[in-house]
Amino acid sequence: SKTYRIAAIPGDGIGPEVLEIGMEVLTAAVNTLSAGRLQFDLFPWGSEYYLQHGRMMPENALEILKAYDAIYLGAIGDPRVPDHLSLEMLLDLRKGFDQYVNLRPVKLLPGVESPVRLKPGETVDFVVVRENTEGEYSRLGGRFKVGTADEVAVQTSIFTRKGTERVMRYAFDLARRRAEERAREGVEVKEGGGTAGGPRPMVTNCTKSNALNYSMVFWDEVYAAVAAEYPDVHRDQALVDALAMWLVRRPAYYDVIVSSNLFGDILTDLAAAIQGGMGIAAGGNINPERTYPSMFEPIHGSAPRYKGQNRANPIAAIWAGSMMLEHLGETAAARLVMKAVEDVLAEGRYRTSDLGGTSSTTEVGEAIKKTIRKKGDALIR
Amino acid sequence: SKTYRIAAIPGDGIGPEVLEIGMEVLTAAVNTLSAGRLQFDLFPWGSEYYLQHGRMMPENALEILKAYDAIYLGAIGDPRVPDHLSLEMLLDLRKGFDQYVNLRPVKLLPGVESPVRLKPGETVDFVVVRENTEGEYSRLGGRFKVGTADEVAVQTSIFTRKGTERVMRYAFDLARRRAEERAREGVEVKEGGGTAGGPRPMVTNCTKSNALNYSMVFWDEVYAAVAAEYPDVHRDQALVDALAMWLVRRPAYYDVIVSSNLFGDILTDLAAAIQGGMGIAAGGNINPERTYPSMFEPIHGSAPRYKGQNRANPIAAIWAGSMMLEHLGETAAARLVMKAVEDVLAEGRYRTSDLGGTSSTTEVGEAIKKTIRKKGDALIR
Ligand SMILES: CC(C)[C@H](C(=O)O)[C@@H](O)C(=O)O
Ligand SMILES: CC(C)[C@H](C(=O)O)[C@@H](O)C(=O)O
Repeated sequence: SKTYRIAAIPGDGIGPEVLEIGMEVLTAAVNTLSAGRLQFDLFPWGSEYYLQHGRMMPENALEILKAYDAIYLGAIGDPRVPDHLSLEMLLDLRKGFDQYVNLRPVKLLPGVESPVRLKPGETVDFVVVRENTEGEYSRLGGRFKVGTADEVAVQTSIFTRKGTERVMRYAFDLARRRAEERAREGVEVKEGGGTAGGPRPMVTNCTKSNALNYSMVFWDEVYAAVAAEYPDVHRDQALVDALAMWLVRRPAYYDVIVSSNLFGDILTDLAAAIQGGMGIAAGGNINPERTYPSMFEPIHGSAPRYKGQNRANPIAAIWAGSMMLEHLGETAAARLVMKAVEDVLAEGRYRTSDLGGTSSTTEVGEAIKKTIRKKGDALIR
Repeated sequence: SKTYRIAAIPGDGIGPEVLEIGMEVLTAAVNTLSAGRLQFDLFPWGSEYYLQHGRMMPENALEILKAYDAIYLGAIGDPRVPDHLSLEMLLDLRKGFDQYVNLRPVKLLPGVESPVRLKPGETVDFVVVRENTEGEYSRLGGRFKVGTADEVAVQTSIFTRKGTERVMRYAFDLARRRAEERAREGVEVKEGGGTAGGPRPMVTNCTKSNALNYSMVFWDEVYAAVAAEYPDVHRDQALVDALAMWLVRRPAYYDVIVSSNLFGDILTDLAAAIQGGMGIAAGGNINPERTYPSMFEPIHGSAPRYKGQNRANPIAAIWAGSMMLEHLGETAAARLVMKAVEDVLAEGRYRTSDLGGTSSTTEVGEAIKKTIRKKGDALIR
């Protein structure tokens, strides 16, 4: 069986605590299924490293990480380090490894209450495919007459055809895979589009071409061109403002949403609220061609106030880990992890405080590991 | 008593129906209080006009409108007219009349159910102050190597110190006025910041300076500089992504939110969902110096499918009208209108379908007018 080499970057604040649990849970899953071996190499980079060395990562960090099958990240950010530095570390990894898809599954897990009222029988199960290397995050621009009454600040977004096309294509392929899986698993869906809305795959184009008359007009054209290659996939379009509204009013409608870097940033945090909060939401920074390692992370921050208190919800990190197993091809182990998470949440006994419970990080982790072993044994037998 | 000259632009789709009711309701309020006379001059501009004349408004539209005390707008947009044309009309008015504040009161009216679960005792009552003339809406940029595999599209945002400072100042002044009013009316507030959170005024700076390293870093600096002039106003800051999440998780926390044009666009639609939907949400496009007329509109679209069906909720248009009366200085009439709206909503008998009722547009309008006359008589007696 295969050995997967994973670079673990625990990072700051609650990052190490939740990543630790994540590593244990993933290991339990692959061991139970005898599905390959996970070798985690720890890299103590981030804010502590910065305070000692004046940088967040060593200069040859990308070279070191390049050899790994995947990167598993905790959280980055510390009050003693300027925010833009810690965040640059994240952006450097995303851009350096051409992780052009930011993948955010948005699913209401059993037993988790959404702050948003759902119609009876409806649930939330969609994915945001966020462009992750260009667009509004180009960091181009400047300031003129700085500090004067006449000052002007300029910020420029750049969208390339290659960069736009490839993320669109990823979204359409994903929509197809999801529909196939729904069909295979006999998921019951109603007519009308979307996961909960219809059996057909659907890609919603998040746009704002009425105001952003170059970038988003171009974006829409690329969407239309790629959509033409996928006649079986239902087209859907929404202005980002309207989409923010509809995600609250009818999240069950959506299947796959494709968005620019900035719009995706906003929508995925909103979506995290809708799926029950930051303690649950996970993301993958994917290089689909596998030229470089992809990176998986809980999308919550480092929450320095909770550091070392054994209170943080480890589920976001665990979910990110499950996405990593899936990416590595260990689908059975990935599913076993999520089934165990779902069972523990549904049972309701072990929950951290963000979900209204009183359990510690480690208690939730233990419960999930125990469930994995039980379920795994049953599967094998 | 004064005569106010108001330019009414009913526009397209359901625009004329809801504006008609709005004009009747406003007239009833000023008449009941003998608070001045409203003279509405109707301008049949918009998509029908475009189909006949090849433009949405006559060439000298701004010259004509300039003479008015305010503009009362229905809705613009028609499937037979390219979207960007109808929307350009809106942007031309906003920019042409330097209506640099887009003001969006977000309040959960009595009897209206939010799709978002609120904590017991909490309510929603905040205002978004959106910059309305520059920033991401500068419509500057271009496309290079159009149609080729190497195509690049560029979109540039421009923020000026003057443009940023004035909208910040408006937000801080508004926060003060709101706190004074809460104190005067004895609104009970808990400690902790925000309308429902504390008695102090608070302005939340909506930013994204970690990614938009020129425009939003500049924006933050201007916020800090203006905030220093208002030591009595509590400072607060949130990244736009986090803010989208927090508006769902804890809308009761906010008092005044100041945001750029694009971020405000997204947040105010999200906020409309939170306050019960597009049928209720109203906005003002304000030129605070009163050099030019300000413009008031329901923020919903023209909903062509519902045109002429007498089904649209007139409350957004009525609320926009109340904001217009307030802007004109007719505060008592403005409040009478909103009190009547609140009474009718609280009573629950007359509601349009978006609020789960079966009443028509005109039935809701009649109920509000009747309530205005009853309440007005009682006030005067
Ligand atoms: C930290 C920040 C730069 C980042 C982003 O805006 O992309 C974060 O919000 C995220 O979504 O991962
Ligand atoms: C119609 C459109 C250009 C406009 C905007 O984006 O400002 C609308 O969404 C609004 O909020 O008034």
